Amino acid sequence: MILSTLKEEALKMHRENHGKLQVSAKVPLMNAHDLSLAYSPGVADPCMAIHDDKEKVYEYTMKGNTVAVVTDGTAVLGLGNIGPEAAMPVMEGKSVLFKNFAGVDAFPICLNTTDVDKIVETVKLLEPTFGGVNLEDIAAPNCFIIEERLKKELNIPVFHDDQHGTAIVTLAGLINALKLVNKKMDEIKVVANGAGAAGIAIIKLLISVGVKDVIMCDTKGIIYEGRQVGMNPVKEEIAKITNKEKLQGTLADALKGADVFIGVSVAGAVTQDMVKSMNKDAIIFAMANPVPEIFPDEAKAAGARVVGTGRSDLPNQVNNVSAFPGIFRGALDVRAREINEEMKIAAAYAIADLIEEKELTEDYVIPNPFDPRVAPKVAGAVAKAAMDTGVARIQVDVKEIEEKTRRLSVIK
Amino acid sequence: MILSTLKEEALKMHRENHGKLQVSAKVPLMNAHDLSLAYSPGVADPCMAIHDDKEKVYEYTMKGNTVAVVTDGTAVLGLGNIGPEAAMPVMEGKSVLFKNFAGVDAFPICLNTTDVDKIVETVKLLEPTFGGVNLEDIAAPNCFIIEERLKKELNIPVFHDDQHGTAIVTLAGLINALKLVNKKMDEIKVVANGAGAAGIAIIKLLISVGVKDVIMCDTKGIIYEGRQVGMNPVKEEIAKITNKEKLQGTLADALKGADVFIGVSVAGAVTQDMVKSMNKDAIIFAMANPVPEIFPDEAKAAGARVVGTGRSDLPNQVNNVSAFPGIFRGALDVRAREINEEMKIAAAYAIADLIEEKELTEDYVIPNPFDPRVAPKVAGAVAKAAMDTGVARIQVDVKEIEEKTRRLSVIK
Repeated sequence: MILSTLKEEALKMHRENHGKLQVSAKVPLMNAHDLSLAYSPGVADPCMAIHDDKEKVYEYTMKGNTVAVVTDGTAVLGLGNIGPEAAMPVMEGKSVLFKNFAGVDAFPICLNTTDVDKIVETVKLLEPTFGGVNLEDIAAPNCFIIEERLKKELNIPVFHDDQHGTAIVTLAGLINALKLVNKKMDEIKVVANGAGAAGIAIIKLLISVGVKDVIMCDTKGIIYEGRQVGMNPVKEEIAKITNKEKLQGTLADALKGADVFIGVSVAGAVTQDMVKSMNKDAIIFAMANPVPEIFPDEAKAAGARVVGTGRSDLPNQVNNVSAFPGIFRGALDVRAREINEEMKIAAAYAIADLIEEKELTEDYVIPNPFDPRVAPKVAGAVAKAAMDTGVARIQVDVKEIEEKTRRLSVIK
Repeated sequence: MILSTLKEEALKMHRENHGKLQVSAKVPLMNAHDLSLAYSPGVADPCMAIHDDKEKVYEYTMKGNTVAVVTDGTAVLGLGNIGPEAAMPVMEGKSVLFKNFAGVDAFPICLNTTDVDKIVETVKLLEPTFGGVNLEDIAAPNCFIIEERLKKELNIPVFHDDQHGTAIVTLAGLINALKLVNKKMDEIKVVANGAGAAGIAIIKLLISVGVKDVIMCDTKGIIYEGRQVGMNPVKEEIAKITNKEKLQGTLADALKGADVFIGVSVAGAVTQDMVKSMNKDAIIFAMANPVPEIFPDEAKAAGARVVGTGRSDLPNQVNNVSAFPGIFRGALDVRAREINEEMKIAAAYAIADLIEEKELTEDYVIPNPFDPRVAPKVAGAVAKAAMDTGVARIQVDVKEIEEKTRRLSVIK
C-alpha cells in the first residue's frame, strides 16, 4: 500500500513537471540593453579574453561550476541495463542533488552507446563545457576502464560516484565505528562481499588508509590469486593486494574471526550464524538495496555491535549524497585537475568528524545525509587536500569555500 | 567611449556571475520524503516506465523541453575560429535567449574537435538527453554537411540557426517590404552577396517561396555554373539553381536592375552607385555586423525604399531571436521529428503578419525582436506546419502552444 502510493506519487511528480531539472539565466535578459551585454555585441569581449587565455573560461563562463553526469544506462540503480533514455530520471535526480546540496550546476549526459572507446571519446570532446565529470551507473568492469582512461586524458576531475561515493561514506562510518569498539585500521580483518564498482572501490580505499587484512568475496566465493572461475582484470588486481594467506572457500569461511563485514551484494547474503562466527564487537555495513544482506536487529541479536545499511529508515545510512556534492564543490572551487586518494580520504574524515566522540553511539556513526554541516565540511576538506597535494590550480581560503557551500545549499 | 564602457560592463557582468547560465531543480528536494520521490526509490518507476516505452521519456523527463546548443567554435559571431572554450559565452547567451523568449531549456555543448565525423558521432550519442539540436557558429561548408547528416540520422529536430534563423527573419522582412512596394515574389530579381551559411540558406528559402530570379555573389564576384575559382560543393549546387543566364562579373554588374539586395558579407560592400543602378523601390537587407554593407541613410539617398540591417539601433533589425526560440518551442511541443521547409516558411509568415498592413512603413517591415507577440505566434505557426506536414509525433492545440509560450516567456 505504501509502496504503491509512493510509486503513484513519484510517477505523478515526474509527469506533471516533465522531469526535475531546468536550465535558466543567472543574469537579466529582457531588453535591448541586456541583450547587448549578454549577447551581441558585448559577448565578444569575454569570448576574446578566453581566446587569449584559455584559463579565463573559468572566470567568464559557467564551466567552473558545471559537472557532466555521464551514464550509458548499463547499471541504473538496482535496475540493471535499462538504457540511456530510461536512465534520465536518475541523472536528473542526481543533478538536482548536486545543485541543492552544494550549488553545483550538473547536467545529464546519457550516451547512446555502451562502447568504452566511444564513451571516452565523447566525454573528451565535451571537456570545454564542463568543469568536472561524474560517471554514474556504468556497469563494471567498463566503469573502471572508462574512469581510468578519462582521468589520464582529461584536465578536469573525473569521479565515478558509484565507486568512490559509496567508498568514502563507508569509510566515514568505519572510522567512527572503530572509535566505538576501540580497534585500529591496521589491526582489523575486513571481509567484503560483492566485487562490483562499489565493492572494489571500498576495498582499495580501506587499504589506502592502512587496513592490512582484507578478504573479498563474490558470487563464486572468496577471491584468491590463481582462482580460475569468474575472474576479470580488476579482480585479478584485487586478488594480488588482498587475501595474503590465499584462503579459499565461501563467504561464511571468510567471515570467521572477521572484525568488519562490508556488503555491496544481495539481500540476505549474511546469516546470523555467520555474524556469530565474527570477532567480538563486529561492525557490519550491509548495503544491498532495498533489502540488506542482513537486517540490523538480526545482526545485533547475533552479536554485531554497529550496523549500517543503505536505507533511510534505519540507523547509519550510507548515502552517497553525503559525499559527491561537497567533493565536487571543493574540487571545482580550487580548479582541481583530479580527485585523488587524499581528497577522498579527507572527505571521509570530514564526514566522520562531524560526530563528536561524546555523541557517538552504535546507531550514530554516520551523520544524517540531510545534516546541513556535511557538504560544507566535505567541500572545505577536499579543497584543502587538493591544495596540499598540488592538484589545485588556484589557492582559495578553506573557510570561504565552506561559507560559500552553506550559502548555496538549500539544505538548512 | 561608449564601446569601451559596454566592453567593461560586459566583462564585469560575465566575471561576477561566472557566466550567464545555471541548472536548477523544478521540484523540491530538501528532505528525506522529497528524496524518496525524486531519487531512490521513487525514481525507479519513471525509469521502468521509459524502459517499457521509450516514448515516455518525453513525459517523465526534461528531454522534451531541452535543446543542445552545439558548436565547434569555428565561426563564432564575427570573430572567426576562436575555439570551443572561447565560444562558451555565446552558447550560454544563446541558451538564455531560448529560455527567456520561449521557456526552452537549452544547454551549451562546445566540442573539442572540428572533425565533421566526430561532431556528427558525438551529437548522435547525445540524442537520449535532448529533444532538439541547435547548431551554432560552425563554419561553412562543414555546417552544411553536419546539418544534413544529423537531419538524416537523428529522430529529433536539427536546426543550424546561423543559416535558417537569419533566412527566416530576412524572408519575413522581405514579405512585408514587397507589400509596401507592391511587387511579388515571382517577379523580383534578388542579388545576394556572401555565400556563407546565412547567404546560402536565405537563397534556398527564397527559392522555396517562389523567387525565380536570383544571383549570388561571393568574394570572387558572381557565382555561375562552370566558374573555376573559389567554388565548393554548396556553391556548385547554388550555381545550378540560380543565375539562369550565367551572368559573369562583379557584384556591381549583378545589381543592375535588381529589386532586392541581400548582404551577409562585409562592411561597405555596396556603394551608392550600385544602389542607383538597382530597380525602382529597391529593397536592401545589409546585414554585415556591426557595420552594414551600406548604411540606411546612404542607401535611401541613392534611391532605396526599404532598408534593414543587423543592428538594434537602426530600423528593421534582422535578429535571429525573432525566430529560433519560437521555432523550437513549436517543434518541441508537437515532438516534431524535424524542422522542415514548411515550418520555416510558416515562421517567416508568422513574424511578417504581426505587422498589419495599415502599420507597415519603410522603417517597420520587421517587428521588434522584443515584441512579446513574436515567439508565441512563431511557436503556434511552426507547430501547425509540423502537424500539417506529418512530422509531428503528437497533435496539440495551436492556441494552447501560443498561450504556453506567452506564459513561459519573460518578454512581456
